[in-house]
Amino acid sequence: MTQKAIFYHAGCPVCVAAENNIIEIIDRSRVDLEIVHLGDAPQRIDEAAAAGVTSVPALVVDGSALHINHGAALSDLR
Amino acid sequence: MTQKAIFYHAGCPVCVAAENNIIEIIDRSRVDLEIVHLGDAPQRIDEAAAAGVTSVPALVVDGSALHINHGAALSDLR
Repeated sequence: MTQKAIFYHAGCPVCVAAENNIIEIIDRSRVDLEIVHLGDAPQRIDEAAAAGVTSVPALVVDGSALHINHGAALSDLR
Repeated sequence: MTQKAIFYHAGCPVCVAAENNIIEIIDRSRVDLEIVHLGDAPQRIDEAAAAGVTSVPALVVDGSALHINHGAALSDLR
Protein backbone atom coordinates (compact mmCIF):
# COMPACT_ATOMS: atom_id res chain seq x y z
CA MET A 1 0.00 0.00 0.00
CA THR A 2 1.37 3.35 -0.99
CA GLN A 3 0.86 6.17 1.47
CA LYS A 4 0.67 9.82 0.77
CA ALA A 5 2.65 12.31 2.82
CA ILE A 6 2.97 16.03 2.20
CA PHE A 7 5.83 18.06 3.62
CA TYR A 8 4.93 21.76 3.82
CA HIS A 9 7.70 24.28 4.26
CA ALA A 10 8.60 27.88 3.56
CA GLY A 11 12.26 27.64 2.65
CA CYS A 12 13.46 28.72 6.11
CA PRO A 13 16.61 27.18 7.64
CA VAL A 14 14.54 25.19 10.15
CA CYS A 15 12.44 23.88 7.25
CA VAL A 16 15.45 22.83 5.16
CA ALA A 17 17.10 21.02 8.08
CA ALA A 18 13.89 19.16 8.91
CA GLU A 19 13.32 18.29 5.25
CA ASN A 20 16.77 16.76 4.97
CA ASN A 21 16.22 14.64 8.07
CA ILE A 22 12.76 13.50 7.02
CA ILE A 23 13.84 12.58 3.49
CA GLU A 24 16.69 10.55 4.96
CA ILE A 25 14.46 8.27 7.00
CA ILE A 26 11.23 8.04 5.05
CA ASP A 27 10.50 4.89 3.04
CA ARG A 28 10.23 6.41 -0.42
CA SER A 29 9.42 3.02 -1.97
CA ARG A 30 6.18 2.94 -0.01
CA VAL A 31 5.45 6.57 0.76
CA ASP A 32 4.56 9.04 -1.97
CA LEU A 33 6.15 12.19 -0.56
CA GLU A 34 5.16 15.55 -1.98
CA ILE A 35 7.14 18.62 -0.95
CA VAL A 36 5.25 21.91 -1.04
CA HIS A 37 6.94 25.31 -0.62
CA LEU A 38 4.13 27.54 0.62
CA GLY A 39 6.05 30.66 -0.33
CA ASP A 40 6.02 29.53 -3.96
CA ALA A 41 2.53 28.01 -3.76
CA PRO A 42 0.53 30.29 -1.44
CA GLN A 43 -2.67 28.94 -2.98
CA ARG A 44 -2.02 25.75 -1.00
CA ILE A 45 -1.95 27.45 2.41
CA ASP A 46 -5.69 26.82 2.88
CA GLU A 47 -5.22 23.13 2.11
CA ALA A 48 -2.44 22.92 4.70
CA ALA A 49 -4.56 24.74 7.27
CA ALA A 50 -7.48 22.38 6.58
CA ALA A 51 -5.19 19.45 7.39
CA GLY A 52 -4.45 21.02 10.76
CA VAL A 53 -1.11 22.61 9.91
CA THR A 54 -0.48 25.71 12.04
CA SER A 55 3.26 26.13 11.45
CA VAL A 56 5.98 25.00 9.08
CA PRO A 57 7.81 22.76 8.63
CA ALA A 58 5.02 20.20 8.91
CA LEU A 59 4.42 16.75 7.53
CA VAL A 60 0.87 15.58 6.86
CA VAL A 61 0.53 11.80 6.99
CA ASP A 62 -2.86 10.18 6.50
CA GLY A 63 -4.51 13.48 7.29
CA SER A 64 -2.59 13.98 10.55
CA ALA A 65 -0.42 17.08 10.83
CA LEU A 66 3.00 16.52 12.38
CA HIS A 67 4.58 19.86 13.22
CA ILE A 68 8.34 19.39 13.11
CA ASN A 69 10.22 21.98 15.12
CA HIS A 70 9.11 25.54 14.42
CA GLY A 71 10.18 27.67 11.50
CA ALA A 72 7.24 30.01 10.93
CA ALA A 73 3.58 30.23 11.80
CA LEU A 74 1.22 29.51 8.92
CA SER A 75 -0.47 32.85 9.61
CA ASP A 76 2.83 34.61 8.85
CA LEU A 77 2.81 33.13 5.35
CA ARG A 78 -0.54 34.59 4.33
CA MET B 1 23.98 2.35 5.30
CA THR B 2 21.91 1.85 8.41
CA GLN B 3 20.87 4.97 10.25
CA LYS B 4 20.03 5.32 13.86
CA ALA B 5 16.94 7.19 14.96
CA ILE B 6 15.58 7.47 18.49
CA PHE B 7 11.95 8.36 19.18
CA TYR B 8 11.55 9.79 22.69
CA HIS B 9 8.09 9.93 24.19
CA ALA B 10 6.26 9.93 27.47
CA GLY B 11 3.19 7.85 26.70
CA CYS B 12 0.93 10.87 26.26
CA PRO B 13 -1.82 10.85 23.60
CA VAL B 14 0.13 13.31 21.41
CA CYS B 15 3.16 11.01 21.69
CA VAL B 16 1.24 7.88 20.74
CA ALA B 17 -0.38 9.53 17.72
CA ALA B 18 2.97 10.85 16.49
CA GLU B 19 4.64 7.49 17.07
CA ASN B 20 2.04 5.72 14.96
CA ASN B 21 2.49 8.18 12.10
CA ILE B 22 6.28 8.04 12.22
CA ILE B 23 6.42 4.25 12.34
CA GLU B 24 4.13 4.14 9.31
CA ILE B 25 6.43 6.12 7.07
CA ILE B 26 9.93 5.33 8.29
CA ASP B 27 12.08 2.95 6.30
CA ARG B 28 12.66 0.27 8.93
CA SER B 29 14.86 -1.76 6.56
CA ARG B 30 17.39 1.07 6.57
CA VAL B 31 16.72 2.94 9.79
CA ASP B 32 17.39 1.37 13.17
CA LEU B 33 14.56 2.94 15.19
CA GLU B 34 14.71 2.84 18.96
CA ILE B 35 11.67 3.91 20.95
CA VAL B 36 12.35 5.28 24.42
CA HIS B 37 9.61 5.99 26.97
CA LEU B 38 11.17 8.61 29.24
CA GLY B 39 8.61 7.93 31.95
CA ASP B 40 9.87 4.34 32.17
CA ALA B 41 13.50 5.28 31.52
CA PRO B 42 14.06 8.62 33.28
CA GLN B 43 17.80 7.90 33.33
CA ARG B 44 17.77 8.67 29.60
CA ILE B 45 16.35 12.19 29.97
CA ASP B 46 19.86 13.67 30.12
CA GLU B 47 20.83 11.87 26.92
CA ALA B 48 17.75 13.27 25.17
CA ALA B 49 18.50 16.77 26.45
CA ALA B 50 22.10 16.47 25.24
CA ALA B 51 20.75 15.73 21.74
CA GLY B 52 18.77 18.96 21.85
CA VAL B 53 15.40 17.51 22.83
CA THR B 54 13.31 20.04 24.77
CA SER B 55 9.88 18.40 24.48
CA VAL B 56 8.31 15.06 23.61
CA PRO B 57 7.46 13.48 21.29
CA ALA B 58 10.78 13.98 19.52
CA LEU B 59 12.77 12.04 16.98
CA VAL B 60 16.55 12.28 16.97
CA VAL B 61 18.06 11.53 13.56
CA ASP B 62 21.81 11.78 13.05
CA GLY B 63 22.08 13.88 16.18
CA SER B 64 19.38 16.34 15.07
CA ALA B 65 16.31 16.70 17.28
CA LEU B 66 13.00 16.86 15.45
CA HIS B 67 10.27 17.96 17.84
CA ILE B 68 7.00 16.54 16.58
CA ASN B 69 3.95 18.43 17.83
CA HIS B 70 4.00 19.05 21.56
CA GLY B 71 3.03 16.57 24.24
CA ALA B 72 5.10 17.63 27.24
CA ALA B 73 8.19 19.66 28.01
CA LEU B 74 11.25 17.61 28.88
CA SER B 75 11.56 19.64 32.08
CA ASP B 76 8.14 18.35 33.16
CA LEU B 77 9.46 14.78 33.03
CA ARG B 78 12.29 15.30 35.49
